[in-house]
Amino acid sequence: MDETLKQQLEAARAASRELAGADRDAGLLAMAAGLENDAAAILAANGEDVERERGRGMSGALLDRLTLDEERLDGIALALRQLAALPDPVGRTLTGSRRPNGLEIRQVTVPFGVVGMIYESRPNVTVDAAALVLKAGSSAVLRGSSSAVLSNRALVDSMRQALAAAGLPEEAVQLVDPDDRALVTQLLTARGLVDLVVPRGGHSLIAHVVETASVPVIETGVGNCHLYVDRGVDIAGAVAMVLNAKLQRPGVCNAIETLLVHEDAAEELLAAAGPALQEAGCELRAAPGALPHLPGAVAATPEDWDTEFLDLVLAVKTVASTEEAVEHISRHGSGHSEAIFTESLESARLFREQVDAAAVYVNASTRFTDGAEFGLGAELGISTQKLHARGPLGLDVLVTSRYLVEGSGQIRP
Amino acid sequence: MDETLKQQLEAARAASRELAGADRDAGLLAMAAGLENDAAAILAANGEDVERERGRGMSGALLDRLTLDEERLDGIALALRQLAALPDPVGRTLTGSRRPNGLEIRQVTVPFGVVGMIYESRPNVTVDAAALVLKAGSSAVLRGSSSAVLSNRALVDSMRQALAAAGLPEEAVQLVDPDDRALVTQLLTARGLVDLVVPRGGHSLIAHVVETASVPVIETGVGNCHLYVDRGVDIAGAVAMVLNAKLQRPGVCNAIETLLVHEDAAEELLAAAGPALQEAGCELRAAPGALPHLPGAVAATPEDWDTEFLDLVLAVKTVASTEEAVEHISRHGSGHSEAIFTESLESARLFREQVDAAAVYVNASTRFTDGAEFGLGAELGISTQKLHARGPLGLDVLVTSRYLVEGSGQIRP
Repeated sequence: MDETLKQQLEAARAASRELAGADRDAGLLAMAAGLENDAAAILAANGEDVERERGRGMSGALLDRLTLDEERLDGIALALRQLAALPDPVGRTLTGSRRPNGLEIRQVTVPFGVVGMIYESRPNVTVDAAALVLKAGSSAVLRGSSSAVLSNRALVDSMRQALAAAGLPEEAVQLVDPDDRALVTQLLTARGLVDLVVPRGGHSLIAHVVETASVPVIETGVGNCHLYVDRGVDIAGAVAMVLNAKLQRPGVCNAIETLLVHEDAAEELLAAAGPALQEAGCELRAAPGALPHLPGAVAATPEDWDTEFLDLVLAVKTVASTEEAVEHISRHGSGHSEAIFTESLESARLFREQVDAAAVYVNASTRFTDGAEFGLGAELGISTQKLHARGPLGLDVLVTSRYLVEGSGQIRP
Repeated sequence: MDETLKQQLEAARAASRELAGADRDAGLLAMAAGLENDAAAILAANGEDVERERGRGMSGALLDRLTLDEERLDGIALALRQLAALPDPVGRTLTGSRRPNGLEIRQVTVPFGVVGMIYESRPNVTVDAAALVLKAGSSAVLRGSSSAVLSNRALVDSMRQALAAAGLPEEAVQLVDPDDRALVTQLLTARGLVDLVVPRGGHSLIAHVVETASVPVIETGVGNCHLYVDRGVDIAGAVAMVLNAKLQRPGVCNAIETLLVHEDAAEELLAAAGPALQEAGCELRAAPGALPHLPGAVAATPEDWDTEFLDLVLAVKTVASTEEAVEHISRHGSGHSEAIFTESLESARLFREQVDAAAVYVNASTRFTDGAEFGLGAELGISTQKLHARGPLGLDVLVTSRYLVEGSGQIRP
């Protein structure tokens, strides 16, 4: 292993031992104030990143994600203060019992220790992730994108100084050199040095992490989400749902990529929703049953059903029944968020029972799959795996637990 | 992927969809009766395995683990009936809230779907694991040892017939060919077909699984456990604790491998415990500070501190303080079970707060780390990882969850 990375991981481990008993909320508040004080230096560093990447041909949406400004920095600082006000997830007793032999057993939450984050261009993730991990009592090892290298360094410098000033170990936040790609593999196989890695980004980043890692990973974020509109529904309500689920923010994981419509509702729904989507700039890719109802749409290819467009593109298909909608989702969904719009109790029951996804909606937009919307306060991402945590990764799942057993000399008979 | 394995995994998936709503407890009871009815065939198959492995030179303890008899089979059937009587872990509401916008959000437990088990020679694991996985609503894909191939086939045949007779899908239990080692790798990388793999066995099996897998894994069982005896304690109580933690069943993961003793207590404790351990056939490997107190002991090598002997061998070391004991455990422990024997509140507090393990004991034997002893009813193994479950894997952690969201047309503003 690279010597610098090894030292970073060992320093992170040592710092994590100090964190559990420290006033981590004071550290978060100090970080918020620090970011405000250091705003000029952070924005200057970010400006350099943005100019360099613009010169390299980075596109509009990506460039926008990379960009920080006063307002966004204020938003980041506000989020830190809100996080500081949330209850401590460490030290909660989850279960407890007194056994017949007198042993007192408590299952108590404790920090993971060292949590790695591997993510793409948005520099706000650098602060959001470090802060959530710190709040949960662990050290954060951050591996961001090389496109944000100067921004991330400036943000981490600011956070570490704030931690040190607040009497917390600055080594609790570590930034991994983004230009050495071998370090990602080393981080993902550092068994015993890293307790958890959370990747956050597109399909290929997540797949690479899951296939490479031997340390525990929480898979996040890929969302090939569907909305199924049943027959016999209020068409105006259905159109509003379609437009919200697709258009409200098309670049995120909980936006829908495919609209499924009962064939009995297809003509009326698509006549209303199709033009509205197209007016918003959304390209429609339709299966044969939907194509006649969508002038201007192109024919969908088989790949479209498996694609997370993350863009103004929507695949559309008619189905003969709720069962067929469920079957399509079982085959093509990524287990993120799936919704039915229906007035039928039987359709709602079937959908709710048979769709296997982190969040299953009846008559609400998939766009609600979000830590804040779920009332979790903050989130590190959306887990699409079944192990440990499924759905928004709130503070409660960024800790692990131990069994504490107290006796008076009991031995096992 | 091997075509047979692929068909098995797909059949397991299809069966898992039927399981959630089926009377799984009736299936477990039918399996118990089936094992009793099929006892002659099962014991004959097991006899062939035992004879073949004896001929190949398998040793006493391993041969004993491989062997089934009437009494052991009765024990397995009894465990099935006890499992059937436990509450269903599927369909429990874990959290629930009504959001200000009227959305009703519930987090409800659901089965994993397809759970793989990779394990070594004991054929009772074939039934125990299949039954726990079925109780938790998932299909079980079992990969046992080739040494138990005929026993496992007979057990699985019996279980499948019992399931079919009880109206449950027999495809919910799948046995993977143990003679084709490539199938293990394929099982461990079958993303989308397998939701979870739990390995159960020795250090090298677990390490291979964790390093190879791209599907989610729960690491189990390797236990390099310690007992630290503080100064100022009741020596008779301490000796009883040492003997229990080492001797009560030396071949299991929650037995201790290293005894740490405060130097002030070393002479008196070791004078009493040393001969008792040696009389029971236990070899002692001592660090320089302990060696003079242990006639007949050999000098410990550096490797001894990192070795899970799983046998009548105990490493012994004196330490100058509870801090030094904690430091030794931090460096050498495997995060399984760690115990302190003390009369000092301060030592107990320090140990409890600073030792990072699945189970931390004050004045009780490490041998209590067990699903039944913890009141969990049954267990699939002991997790030594921090993700999803730590400690005994009871029914409650053999399920995952979904968020069910019900609205009345809400869209995200």
